[in-house]
Amino acid sequence: MYGSEFADILGRVRVKRPLIHHITNYVTVNDCANITLCAGGAPVMADAREEVAEMVAVSGALVLNIGTLNPSLIESMILAGTVANDKKIPIILDPVGVGATRLRTTSAQRLIDELSITILKGNAGEIGVLAGAEGKVRGVDSEGLKGDPVTVARDFARAEGVTVVVSGEADIVTDGTRTLLVENGDPMMGIICGTGCMASSVVGTFAAVCDDPVMASAGALAAFGIAGERAAARQGRPGSFKPVLLDELATLDLLTLEECAKVRNA
Amino acid sequence: MYGSEFADILGRVRVKRPLIHHITNYVTVNDCANITLCAGGAPVMADAREEVAEMVAVSGALVLNIGTLNPSLIESMILAGTVANDKKIPIILDPVGVGATRLRTTSAQRLIDELSITILKGNAGEIGVLAGAEGKVRGVDSEGLKGDPVTVARDFARAEGVTVVVSGEADIVTDGTRTLLVENGDPMMGIICGTGCMASSVVGTFAAVCDDPVMASAGALAAFGIAGERAAARQGRPGSFKPVLLDELATLDLLTLEECAKVRNA
Amino acid sequence: MYGSEFADILGRVRVKRPLIHHITNYVTVNDCANITLCAGGAPVMADAREEVAEMVAVSGALVLNIGTLNPSLIESMILAGTVANDKKIPIILDPVGVGATRLRTTSAQRLIDELSITILKGNAGEIGVLAGAEGKVRGVDSEGLKGDPVTVARDFARAEGVTVVVSGEADIVTDGTRTLLVENGDPMMGIICGTGCMASSVVGTFAAVCDDPVMASAGALAAFGIAGERAAARQGRPGSFKPVLLDELATLDLLTLEECAKVRNA
Repeated sequence: MYGSEFADILGRVRVKRPLIHHITNYVTVNDCANITLCAGGAPVMADAREEVAEMVAVSGALVLNIGTLNPSLIESMILAGTVANDKKIPIILDPVGVGATRLRTTSAQRLIDELSITILKGNAGEIGVLAGAEGKVRGVDSEGLKGDPVTVARDFARAEGVTVVVSGEADIVTDGTRTLLVENGDPMMGIICGTGCMASSVVGTFAAVCDDPVMASAGALAAFGIAGERAAARQGRPGSFKPVLLDELATLDLLTLEECAKVRNA
Repeated sequence: MYGSEFADILGRVRVKRPLIHHITNYVTVNDCANITLCAGGAPVMADAREEVAEMVAVSGALVLNIGTLNPSLIESMILAGTVANDKKIPIILDPVGVGATRLRTTSAQRLIDELSITILKGNAGEIGVLAGAEGKVRGVDSEGLKGDPVTVARDFARAEGVTVVVSGEADIVTDGTRTLLVENGDPMMGIICGTGCMASSVVGTFAAVCDDPVMASAGALAAFGIAGERAAARQGRPGSFKPVLLDELATLDLLTLEECAKVRNA
Repeated sequence: MYGSEFADILGRVRVKRPLIHHITNYVTVNDCANITLCAGGAPVMADAREEVAEMVAVSGALVLNIGTLNPSLIESMILAGTVANDKKIPIILDPVGVGATRLRTTSAQRLIDELSITILKGNAGEIGVLAGAEGKVRGVDSEGLKGDPVTVARDFARAEGVTVVVSGEADIVTDGTRTLLVENGDPMMGIICGTGCMASSVVGTFAAVCDDPVMASAGALAAFGIAGERAAARQGRPGSFKPVLLDELATLDLLTLEECAKVRNA
């Protein structure tokens, strides 16, 4: 379902090659840059408060990732996000590790309060923390939330007016009205560092060329998940898996995306 | 020798999946995160002074690496280390490039003076600098020390009350009383960037589940060294070697660690 | 042409193993460290203002890269560059993304004004911005300049008294008097993140052992380009290409460099 729509989005990405401005962590930043290239976008990483407003103004999307945050970085995110909002540039927020420390929780909350986030993407624990559903986070890993994740995500999306993505065995994508489940992916993607951050970059790349955040998110996660499935079929070891994951997204053709996307209504 | 003890530690790592808090450099941070995952731990990187105390409090070990240090990072290390000491969480310090600049030397010395470091791991030049044995460091590479490295390490360990690890062709592990030599590893590990930092992450991961820093260090270095030997047997070129090194640690089974560990008393 | 001279330089690199001090961005820093090792140099990354003067003083070259700049980093670059100038240590400046934001443009201009840069290496858009030739830069990608790139580069090199390198299908290397074209390389190098930064690291490594910046630059770009050609012959997918690119530079022998360098006078 939706396979042909997703293929259309990926086709537009590859024609337009949107600039994707990241303000992100220094752990997975290289992975994010490379996966953006593999998806068909043009990554740019810039976080100095003196330049983020100019950089985001010419970008197709803004990806905010708090994996290694500090107060100065959050200020840059607010500055860039304000410009993005003014210019109707979509903002993707990945609240990495929210709930693990007060700094992460208050910073993510502040970003949500002061900016109009387009897509909020986290694991179940992170979304649970932000949604007030007793999310549990250990370091940057989810230890779940209280209640049904689909219901929590849907209610939270509706209350906040954002599209919420909850990564997991099946990814949940919801704007509070429509809710999709993306069942692509492979457990190998969970045993290397960076796939969560990379997924957010791919979501940002799709959102840069598609006005519908639900379709952009689901399409991006389907594409990235299919790449993961195909990479896992070729490589079962983590170190060798990552290069192949990049390869598979770079060489994913539109027909494969159309045919292999496993997305259904919740 | 000690192979079965090391296998027990690795087994515990894989069951407990300890959270390993890193305050580290931005050059090899991704390698450190991935090798921690491959060893069986859960890495988290966080260095803002506003959050390190909370993050370390729920971690199994704290890895401090001064590869790209600055005064603010050292403050975060002191904050996190103080909490780690209070909570009896082991601290691994990798004084990268100590001796190359005054900032590195005074910072490493301050960390040693103000914190109770559990395991201090460096190359011969770095340990020589800290031990007052005319260590020579060029950039981040060792150019040796004056005297017998085993004696220097043992005396320094005894004087400081820390476990000292000196990386080299044979790694030295000593708490001043017991001294072990780890003879696993391959020269290939020296021709890529990051294996020293990665080794410290693996040591931290083992130390998180083992109260004996000598055994934790030796077991970690044996496991990482065996992975290096097996990777080198498969790949003799540096770019392709690193992914395979990760693979080999991730797939190292307990029996192989037990049988292939080359560790003896000095 | 010049193949034997380039082989001589690479031979000297591998004997001397020069220390290459980088003040660089956090996106590609690991790639820069590894490619420096593969070229035969010893990388060190250090950017704290408290230590850069000492670090550069013992280095063979200083590579400045503004890929993720901020005002504090620029101060460190000025400090390190001043010492490099005093000690006649060559400085390579890669003005990544200059023209994309005022911070990048004014910072790069300040570095050029306050320091004596040995080699200024950018893409056509970046050099066009600095040369006043209507360079266009989108994020960190070139969108060209106005006029003939060879003429622009040559005039700018003569006016500024620097060696200018313009990366492209054929790389231009000019000091205003001599102008060489380097026709090695492969389009694969343009589809992964980091090859531009890596090229600057290789240029720095060659410049550390060769007093002639034109020959050092051309030789480095030929060597890196040949590695890229050979890697592309083995791997056509981006994720798997990068490790192989590193492999090929690490194993490039002097005779191959001599025979495969495609460098001619403009």
